[in-house]
Amino acid sequence: MKIIRLLPLVVILAINAGQAQVQNRAVIPDINGYQTLQCDFHTHSVFSDGLVWPTVRVDESWREGLDAISLTEHLEYRPHSKDIIASHDRSYEIAQPSANNRHIILIRGSEITRAMPPGHFNAIFLNDCDALAKEDWRQSFAEAKKQNAFIFWNHPSWDAQQPDTTLWFPEHTEIFNNGWMHGIEVVNGRKYSEEAFQWCLDKKLTLIGTSDIHQPIQTDIDFAGGAHRTMTLVFAKERTAEAIREALDNRRTAVYFNEFLIGEEQYLRSIFENSIEIKDVKRNVNGVAVTVKNNSSLTFKLKKTTHDTEIVYFRDYEIRPHSQHVITVRAPAKKGGDVNFEITNFLVRPGKGLKYSYKLP
Amino acid sequence: MKIIRLLPLVVILAINAGQAQVQNRAVIPDINGYQTLQCDFHTHSVFSDGLVWPTVRVDESWREGLDAISLTEHLEYRPHSKDIIASHDRSYEIAQPSANNRHIILIRGSEITRAMPPGHFNAIFLNDCDALAKEDWRQSFAEAKKQNAFIFWNHPSWDAQQPDTTLWFPEHTEIFNNGWMHGIEVVNGRKYSEEAFQWCLDKKLTLIGTSDIHQPIQTDIDFAGGAHRTMTLVFAKERTAEAIREALDNRRTAVYFNEFLIGEEQYLRSIFENSIEIKDVKRNVNGVAVTVKNNSSLTFKLKKTTHDTEIVYFRDYEIRPHSQHVITVRAPAKKGGDVNFEITNFLVRPGKGLKYSYKLP
Amino acid sequence: MKIIRLLPLVVILAINAGQAQVQNRAVIPDINGYQTLQCDFHTHSVFSDGLVWPTVRVDESWREGLDAISLTEHLEYRPHSKDIIASHDRSYEIAQPSANNRHIILIRGSEITRAMPPGHFNAIFLNDCDALAKEDWRQSFAEAKKQNAFIFWNHPSWDAQQPDTTLWFPEHTEIFNNGWMHGIEVVNGRKYSEEAFQWCLDKKLTLIGTSDIHQPIQTDIDFAGGAHRTMTLVFAKERTAEAIREALDNRRTAVYFNEFLIGEEQYLRSIFENSIEIKDVKRNVNGVAVTVKNNSSLTFKLKKTTHDTEIVYFRDYEIRPHSQHVITVRAPAKKGGDVNFEITNFLVRPGKGLKYSYKLP
Amino acid sequence: MKIIRLLPLVVILAINAGQAQVQNRAVIPDINGYQTLQCDFHTHSVFSDGLVWPTVRVDESWREGLDAISLTEHLEYRPHSKDIIASHDRSYEIAQPSANNRHIILIRGSEITRAMPPGHFNAIFLNDCDALAKEDWRQSFAEAKKQNAFIFWNHPSWDAQQPDTTLWFPEHTEIFNNGWMHGIEVVNGRKYSEEAFQWCLDKKLTLIGTSDIHQPIQTDIDFAGGAHRTMTLVFAKERTAEAIREALDNRRTAVYFNEFLIGEEQYLRSIFENSIEIKDVKRNVNGVAVTVKNNSSLTFKLKKTTHDTEIVYFRDYEIRPHSQHVITVRAPAKKGGDVNFEITNFLVRPGKGLKYSYKLP
Repeated sequence: MKIIRLLPLVVILAINAGQAQVQNRAVIPDINGYQTLQCDFHTHSVFSDGLVWPTVRVDESWREGLDAISLTEHLEYRPHSKDIIASHDRSYEIAQPSANNRHIILIRGSEITRAMPPGHFNAIFLNDCDALAKEDWRQSFAEAKKQNAFIFWNHPSWDAQQPDTTLWFPEHTEIFNNGWMHGIEVVNGRKYSEEAFQWCLDKKLTLIGTSDIHQPIQTDIDFAGGAHRTMTLVFAKERTAEAIREALDNRRTAVYFNEFLIGEEQYLRSIFENSIEIKDVKRNVNGVAVTVKNNSSLTFKLKKTTHDTEIVYFRDYEIRPHSQHVITVRAPAKKGGDVNFEITNFLVRPGKGLKYSYKLP
Repeated sequence: MKIIRLLPLVVILAINAGQAQVQNRAVIPDINGYQTLQCDFHTHSVFSDGLVWPTVRVDESWREGLDAISLTEHLEYRPHSKDIIASHDRSYEIAQPSANNRHIILIRGSEITRAMPPGHFNAIFLNDCDALAKEDWRQSFAEAKKQNAFIFWNHPSWDAQQPDTTLWFPEHTEIFNNGWMHGIEVVNGRKYSEEAFQWCLDKKLTLIGTSDIHQPIQTDIDFAGGAHRTMTLVFAKERTAEAIREALDNRRTAVYFNEFLIGEEQYLRSIFENSIEIKDVKRNVNGVAVTVKNNSSLTFKLKKTTHDTEIVYFRDYEIRPHSQHVITVRAPAKKGGDVNFEITNFLVRPGKGLKYSYKLP
Repeated sequence: MKIIRLLPLVVILAINAGQAQVQNRAVIPDINGYQTLQCDFHTHSVFSDGLVWPTVRVDESWREGLDAISLTEHLEYRPHSKDIIASHDRSYEIAQPSANNRHIILIRGSEITRAMPPGHFNAIFLNDCDALAKEDWRQSFAEAKKQNAFIFWNHPSWDAQQPDTTLWFPEHTEIFNNGWMHGIEVVNGRKYSEEAFQWCLDKKLTLIGTSDIHQPIQTDIDFAGGAHRTMTLVFAKERTAEAIREALDNRRTAVYFNEFLIGEEQYLRSIFENSIEIKDVKRNVNGVAVTVKNNSSLTFKLKKTTHDTEIVYFRDYEIRPHSQHVITVRAPAKKGGDVNFEITNFLVRPGKGLKYSYKLP
Repeated sequence: MKIIRLLPLVVILAINAGQAQVQNRAVIPDINGYQTLQCDFHTHSVFSDGLVWPTVRVDESWREGLDAISLTEHLEYRPHSKDIIASHDRSYEIAQPSANNRHIILIRGSEITRAMPPGHFNAIFLNDCDALAKEDWRQSFAEAKKQNAFIFWNHPSWDAQQPDTTLWFPEHTEIFNNGWMHGIEVVNGRKYSEEAFQWCLDKKLTLIGTSDIHQPIQTDIDFAGGAHRTMTLVFAKERTAEAIREALDNRRTAVYFNEFLIGEEQYLRSIFENSIEIKDVKRNVNGVAVTVKNNSSLTFKLKKTTHDTEIVYFRDYEIRPHSQHVITVRAPAKKGGDVNFEITNFLVRPGKGLKYSYKLP
């Protein structure tokens, strides 16, 4: 049949079109000897209730310059199953060659999708997703544990399951005690959960932020307007799946959400210091003019805290991505002292920004 | 099982998210008693080689304010068939409720996908896509004709099938003579074919422009930068599938591609006249100042043509979408005459813009 | 000299270029029988320390669809005075013909520019700016009062003058008691002052928001990213300078700042109700699906407040400009009740959003 | 007087605000051992008929990452002279400290502004602008020559002076023969003159492209949409005023206009080769797949030219800025040969693009 002659061309051209793309990665510095990897461990394709072919998730990640993603199809919720007949591992298998080609680390995972309690959980670093498809949710968790998965609680504040208050149920204590919960989504898409953040701090769980994307991602995220997907920053020894796992196990993450960074003070402090370059410091009789350059894609919102009242500077100050500023501090001649401020969008606890002191030269 | 309780909510919320969208329709005026409908008769979903679920095509159309679309899955090329088992009508069936909900006219169609000759053709206004799946392409066309389809030749200049020159093969004469070809894609995606345009004019075929979209549409079209998909403007008696068909049969279309409008002079002239509003005309001793407002999303690129040399005006002039201008024409006091120009991006023949004369008051 | 022949043309073309612009006005509904006028009563040109020619302020306003502006040059701070020798009224005089031409209401004003206390004040609706140039600031205020000016305190929280706390000095009491203060800038540019808001509520002063623009406005405001300048919404009987003055005198204003609206409850409630259209309400056994359309350029950030726990709906919900949504509320069959929420970005007091109840049908 | 205390602060804060900016320089590679400097030798401020303070031109240049600019105020056309009383050198003097501060090379210049013939000319690298203010234009040119200026003809196709045809008058021959014309603006703002390009090639004049900006630049150039001002690329031995002059004298320039590069073949060929990186070449039985990455901000529009018909590849192909592509070429196994194309937007003569051959490995 003549059509046979046609096919190779179509395939070639489809690949071609798919790669005529521009990469635009957020600039976030490495810290403390670790690489800062940009990861999204919660996405969907048509193989559960997502609306795109699995390879689209890889293409999107490549354009955004992500390092690692996971396709976490719902085990129990497959609205397209009338037309799509496949194993729970299929989505990973389809995306894998594309991920290899584009140097994206693809981590096999599944979403355990139950009514509350316990709600939804992602198990990633699986070997066999199908094995998790069990009637009893405890069996699913046990199987994930058996495969040595990294398991995190998804969107604990989701109003469809927690309509008024974000509750920790006895089932969550059971899951936690069984070693079935290693992290919690502090941010899922556009929803930030203060309760989840506090639980992570209290129980030494890993902070996770994900897109939970179902649509083509440009439908949800206004890239032209400078927005980015919610992601987990993983401070890893190298850019490999194994190193990501090691970092997750050791809670070396932060969550990048809108203009917020959410994480432990040690990491956020280093991110700030490695983002800001002091280009020039000039002292005259009126005080000090400090030229700072923000080499990152991050925004810093500074708010003055307690300070020597002879040292006069901004009450609020915003440092936009990749911008250069001359910040003036009035101070008596030769007087030293500290410029103290809080970075209000770098959250180290619910509602608390990172505190910082800059010593006048 | 507990999960049963969960499902209705998930469904409700998914619908919810899908509709939290903004519509942004190109403003193109109605003309000559017809409605100017914005249509795209060539799109793909995962049911052939596209990368999105069929409902995504409806969502995209709604956001762009389109009136009608067709999902034209390849009959002979189905690279996802290992996972997706479905009839050729399935994509239409899935998208139909969504189209009804959003008031998009969804026209059932298929793409006959053959090596060149004859290449690819879309048959739209079908009743039964499966019936077109035949070994012999002539049987496919005959079946489409039997179903009273409107059939057009896709991307005749596609370099994968016509590597050097855009050829009209004897098979195309046969198809044309059999009444199996009613239009040709003058523009497919970003590719404009001058040969196709000339053939449409010579053979009285309908001018068609389509996106042929496979990706999520935002991947190919930079909406934030003001771009739009290639589409067919259909000048229809009303906003119904039947009226679209009547207009197609009577060749009342134009193609909207980048900043170009391609079509017969009568339609392009009316589009121009109904887009531009003359807000004010002031005559003084130096000449005339004409305040014009472009009420449309179209751009007009004017180039002076032959004229009375005492009437002095622009050599080139661009009227951007939704802009207001004061255009000055120097002329001796009380002298009348014509301001003659060509609208170089309103093509009435290959390489020829619409000519226009404005008479000085 | 030959050059004489050239000039008329240059002038004509300059005008021409200036008007080839696109208008893009924020859509904010009229309320309570008043027109909602968009006004900016604090801008600068090269005639004080601004960086553009006065007509540029008119062009900018026209593009943004503003109704009224004021050029409020500093009386006491004129850093360009070595090169620009002019009366304090000159900037108004230069801009006036351009404002007439573009139908912008231009209100004559000046900025009284003093060290703190009392700081900076704008006097608008002046007849003679030069008359305010006095050594003693009390004389400047008295003259403004004599001319029946509307006077407001500018940026009371400006850190250059109030480095740590926003103080109300005895001088402000004196000014207030003398009838020399009719309003306060609650927002100046990007700085929102909670203290100023509270003072306006307590002392029955008019809420004012301004850009205080010095640069070309596109340098400060990212219009492509959807931003707008800070402005005062004036609820006026008609679109005239006199009607604006009457509304200012009667405190019928609100401040539009980023995604915030700041004002008295009566106005904010009406703005919300006139922005949101309920397109459809469907009740089924699970509850109610309400299709809402936001016809405005405003964003609404809803947060659930106390409610009947059988009525289950969003905890947080964002309605973006010009978007359509289906909001689902689960409720027992036939059960009525209220959907209660706060619009957290519609501030009716410092830190307090507008409360709203929607009664289930 | 108390106000004295206020001034230093205002000055400090104004500087501060002006520098809180983001730089966004077009990435265009160095070539042939030269630095590719981005220059604009034709701009205006309020000191002639521009609409911004001179320092704004420096701020704009800094944001766009330009290397050098010239403020070329009209000598004979000063519509703001009622308010602004200054020497013709004043605009340079005001901008100079700001240019030093931001490391922009500021070149002193003036625009000789006469009726046609001879029209408008820019003289740059002047020492004393005032000395050019003469009644007779020949005296102005002679003075510029005496100061060893680089002189170029501005917008020879400007319709206000050349309403129908771009004429070379006897006066231009006189100017050329006197050594008073060293270059011509091939592009002024949005106007490209094919005649000017041809004259430069024929008479060995330097190709110049300028913005001729009068407005705040964001009013004319849509930076958010990816546009840039028209500029002259100068291939200089180093980043100094002297090196720019040496390059201009030796005609080492190209004009960057919209998506066009206009210049001599040797420079355009090097720009292309230094922009495109070949990341990977894979040969299989069907042919060759070449992965190319465009490391520049330039667009390349390729059009196939004459070629061996056994080597089958694109007819038209567009390489967007900073994008990566896999370009497939079908060829018989082991067959070598050339992929020939024209880069249609790299103009080496009016209407002629750069021809290029890529040899299959």
